[in-house]
Amino acid sequence: MGRTEVVSRALSGDIRAVSRLISLIEDCVPGFEGLYSEIYPFTGKAHVIGITGPPGSGKSTLVDKMAAVCRERGKTVGIVAVDPTSPFTGGALLGDRLRMQRHALDDGVFIRSMGTRGQLGGISRATSGAVDVLDAAGYDYVIIETVGVGQSEVEIASIADTVVLVQVPGLGDDIQVIKAGVMEIGDLFAVNKKDRPGVERVVAEIRIALELSSVASRGGGGTSRIAGSAGHHGVSALGAAGSEREETVDEEAARPCWHPPILQTLAETGEGVGELFDACDEHMRYLAGTGELDDRRYRRARSETMQIASGRIWRGLTDDRGAFAAAEELAWKVARREIDPYSAGNELYEMIVK
Amino acid sequence: MGRTEVVSRALSGDIRAVSRLISLIEDCVPGFEGLYSEIYPFTGKAHVIGITGPPGSGKSTLVDKMAAVCRERGKTVGIVAVDPTSPFTGGALLGDRLRMQRHALDDGVFIRSMGTRGQLGGISRATSGAVDVLDAAGYDYVIIETVGVGQSEVEIASIADTVVLVQVPGLGDDIQVIKAGVMEIGDLFAVNKKDRPGVERVVAEIRIALELSSVASRGGGGTSRIAGSAGHHGVSALGAAGSEREETVDEEAARPCWHPPILQTLAETGEGVGELFDACDEHMRYLAGTGELDDRRYRRARSETMQIASGRIWRGLTDDRGAFAAAEELAWKVARREIDPYSAGNELYEMIVK
Repeated sequence: MGRTEVVSRALSGDIRAVSRLISLIEDCVPGFEGLYSEIYPFTGKAHVIGITGPPGSGKSTLVDKMAAVCRERGKTVGIVAVDPTSPFTGGALLGDRLRMQRHALDDGVFIRSMGTRGQLGGISRATSGAVDVLDAAGYDYVIIETVGVGQSEVEIASIADTVVLVQVPGLGDDIQVIKAGVMEIGDLFAVNKKDRPGVERVVAEIRIALELSSVASRGGGGTSRIAGSAGHHGVSALGAAGSEREETVDEEAARPCWHPPILQTLAETGEGVGELFDACDEHMRYLAGTGELDDRRYRRARSETMQIASGRIWRGLTDDRGAFAAAEELAWKVARREIDPYSAGNELYEMIVK
Repeated sequence: MGRTEVVSRALSGDIRAVSRLISLIEDCVPGFEGLYSEIYPFTGKAHVIGITGPPGSGKSTLVDKMAAVCRERGKTVGIVAVDPTSPFTGGALLGDRLRMQRHALDDGVFIRSMGTRGQLGGISRATSGAVDVLDAAGYDYVIIETVGVGQSEVEIASIADTVVLVQVPGLGDDIQVIKAGVMEIGDLFAVNKKDRPGVERVVAEIRIALELSSVASRGGGGTSRIAGSAGHHGVSALGAAGSEREETVDEEAARPCWHPPILQTLAETGEGVGELFDACDEHMRYLAGTGELDDRRYRRARSETMQIASGRIWRGLTDDRGAFAAAEELAWKVARREIDPYSAGNELYEMIVK
């Protein structure tokens, strides 16, 4: 079977083809699944690093400096900047253009920003596609940068091999320094803006939170981090409820454990960024050495497979004229309080399944 | 059929029963659907107001003052405080307890906080349940307070009759004052902390953004707001893609239009809060007078019905041992790059549907 030209060019590292291929997959143009199947066999080589943290923690600057470190070491890097709160995409953001300019003459750095573009729930699929294109195109590292605002960061973290949680001193009460539930997804912690007062307190808080979560999960410091991280890679907006079984716990109990390091950085000057990068590499060696890398990537694959199947079921429901008409009729009854939403939903379900 | 005791007591306004019923529905305890069907016929009377805005905009204080205004006017109010970024729930938050104390001796104010509790995607269902319980229990107003961080605010806004977007001067660059895509969900704008410098600029920015969105959608000031608001009430995490048809546009074109007012408030002192409340009442009169209220509630019902049906389909997929085993096998192939995720997802879909 002949390869599509845009795919051939993207695989050879042609930046414009890479960019175009990401757009085609992001927009789910007719035939995008075929393009995806062409690039997919070439994926799995890049180290995918997810960077997340609250607004104002300096993630963008940190990622820029990480890219610079990458280049100093002779490696290439693709950056996917995801803002789940923004409908803009495709490099339309001003900040993004400024960043582009800084690396404009360097083919070893590719930057792409993604917004929601109104597709609620679709951002993790689009991000996954962009990551796979960059991976297939031969970038050594792919960095996913996302603002830490709840569900989306957890979803996006599930795509990464290594998750860096960025914290920063002095963000005030309203933005919690460490949100429980998000803590567990961190493989590394970077306390940025380390010249600010309060940096030691943030480090201490992270340390305490790590110890607490270590004690809380399965009663021991040894295997708990692994068990904890085993959980997050199966999480998805749809699959969180039932898809994560306990099968991975026992086999992993005998492995060496990963203690998430806490690093201090000053992204503006680049201080500590080399060490952060070293720690990411160290984490990858740990993943590869213990077999955890295969497990993570398997869980990502399972989550995506189930999401895609579920998406097709949902599309079948909304595209099917008959099902949609039935949903409309039931909804009017619900709106008139003749039946409740659960009875209506169950009735619709019974109708579809038969 | 006899009514369950907790339902009877909640319907008579017993605060402990209301609280218990919300928990039972939130936790999806066995039989919760039956409880839901008992209370549902008594819903639809409350005016449901959604309040959303960025962290630090003073939403909680504003909502507290709105509750006070409510009580001065002899009305009762239920408050559902939703934090999609927090796993805490059920009044466990310190801030929430403090708020509870302030209204502790007043049966006319009920406050409840909801977190994600690890149920990604489940928060809008849980919020919807709490709103319906409070509505059935006879509260005149139900206020949903949620932090504005992307998808969740849009989902939660879809439950409300009236959506108030809270903005505030001087939040800095990283937190955008008005995010496109969220703009459209606002029926009213409250610029809080109006004693701060920059308040006029925020008001002007909102005005310009409103004019732009008015011009952008369907080329005219007249019907665009209605068309815009018609869209958001059908939005859900799952249903955004295909469920919103164009059927409501034509019939609404002839209606009088709603121009979202921009109010200035100082929640700390209560300044402007009475006017904000008046504007909410005015919006409800508009909704009721034009028939838009029925349309919004119909769209909420349709979205919920389809979500519930879809949830059952998904549960069927994850609970079915055979389907889960097939998903696992396919996922290993994906992880080994033998097939791509879309081929695997489609194969799983075909298997389930047959």
